[in-house]
Amino acid sequence: MKIGIVGLGLIGGSLGIDLRSQGHYIVGISRQSSTCQTALEKGIADQASMHFKALGDVEIVIVCTPIPAIAPTIKQLVAHLSPNTIITDVGSVKQPIVNECSPLWSNFIGGHPMAGTAHSGIDAAIPNLFTGTAYVFTPTRENKPEDVETLKKIALDLNAIPHVCDAQIHDRAVSWISHLPVMVSASLIKACLQEEPDTLQLAQILASSGFRDTSRVGGGNPELGVMMAKYNKKELLRSLYYYRDNLDEIIGLIEEEKWQDLTKILQNNGKARSKFLN
Amino acid sequence: MKIGIVGLGLIGGSLGIDLRSQGHYIVGISRQSSTCQTALEKGIADQASMHFKALGDVEIVIVCTPIPAIAPTIKQLVAHLSPNTIITDVGSVKQPIVNECSPLWSNFIGGHPMAGTAHSGIDAAIPNLFTGTAYVFTPTRENKPEDVETLKKIALDLNAIPHVCDAQIHDRAVSWISHLPVMVSASLIKACLQEEPDTLQLAQILASSGFRDTSRVGGGNPELGVMMAKYNKKELLRSLYYYRDNLDEIIGLIEEEKWQDLTKILQNNGKARSKFLN
Repeated sequence: MKIGIVGLGLIGGSLGIDLRSQGHYIVGISRQSSTCQTALEKGIADQASMHFKALGDVEIVIVCTPIPAIAPTIKQLVAHLSPNTIITDVGSVKQPIVNECSPLWSNFIGGHPMAGTAHSGIDAAIPNLFTGTAYVFTPTRENKPEDVETLKKIALDLNAIPHVCDAQIHDRAVSWISHLPVMVSASLIKACLQEEPDTLQLAQILASSGFRDTSRVGGGNPELGVMMAKYNKKELLRSLYYYRDNLDEIIGLIEEEKWQDLTKILQNNGKARSKFLN
Repeated sequence: MKIGIVGLGLIGGSLGIDLRSQGHYIVGISRQSSTCQTALEKGIADQASMHFKALGDVEIVIVCTPIPAIAPTIKQLVAHLSPNTIITDVGSVKQPIVNECSPLWSNFIGGHPMAGTAHSGIDAAIPNLFTGTAYVFTPTRENKPEDVETLKKIALDLNAIPHVCDAQIHDRAVSWISHLPVMVSASLIKACLQEEPDTLQLAQILASSGFRDTSRVGGGNPELGVMMAKYNKKELLRSLYYYRDNLDEIIGLIEEEKWQDLTKILQNNGKARSKFLN
């Protein structure tokens, strides 16, 4: 197929590499001519342009910009598309994007390839980034089932595992497994910093893998963390309220020395956690 | 030196292997004859016995039993020791153990080698377990400075890094970096399980490294988790109250959409976390 990729960073660039290797013809779009040049050199795109008119005959457009730029970008590019073109995005939150973009293009279907690395930008683009990862699509009732099938085939070309669900369910699920952990972990680091200097210094010396793992996502990219909170506010707050209730329950068990109840919770956690680790 | 090790599990066994390799003479004590046999076969001890009378002429006794057995064990073995023998333990909480054991033996000095693996028992004992890890000692004012120096040299023989501090400061520091993370992480898993089945199932499918890391210590050994709460209750609750306040602050910022304040916290966290990762 002829596929346009708008925004050639880590995700856009990596999509280009793998889709080209599957025989698709890739039109890369970037605002910077140097990025267009790199895209051609790295084998990310067959053709690269700074202008949306290059998308005139593509069958699919994958918008790979940061979340705040997705709807503004689609507003600008729709004038250049053939009517049957499917537009999808790669944003990590779906309901607000679907709400904003569906009215702009009837063949818009939200997407979220759940892959990434600690790096960003076109130089971070790599082959096989999506192998074995989930690729979620969140069509509405207005979308054509055959368009959803087309996108699922694209996910399979990437060796990803396509999942189709409601946008709200997606946002709720990613809040639990991605956005809530960031705030839980951020609160841990922030709380430690309130300790007095001598004890804090000893804590820093003694910290090992348990602290390292639990604090990892709370010490990550601040812009990403704020973006999650901003665009998935409702679902994130919902999971934070559940979390606070469960924290309070555990605090209560320790205060009241209900060791058997605490044992049961920790036993149940060990079993439950394994279901998240496939 | 002639050193007695009481309790030949992961820690006791690994201490034996490394201290023997440094030329110390090790007397291993276990309640089970099969463990004594294994200790000799694995090179953990030069001599192994089920009876405390074998400790008659050792210079140091390292008690490596689980926390609840430390004081009862010391009560039984002191009758067999020479008066200058130093007793130390390896429990992960220090203040309650120091309070209980110091009256039993004036040369008792609390210790905490901060090493471990996911395994336990004598078969899990390995060489070099302590290399590069912290080994904390928590003497009281009653202890002789030269006895503390003797223990620090033992830590150096293990290629560990000795630290000397007050027992309460130790318990406070390990609460921040070890015990609090367990409860923070356990609350995360427990909260997720309250989601309705369809969304929970999607969350399980979509979960990747962020959830895996943040939930790791909350899905670990239940007995260890309860032991931390039981023996370090005061300091754990103190850090949990700080944690809840900081969580509430982050929830408040999201509710009020104070994105700049949230950005500042996450930026600060990134810098602060690196100081815990040496």
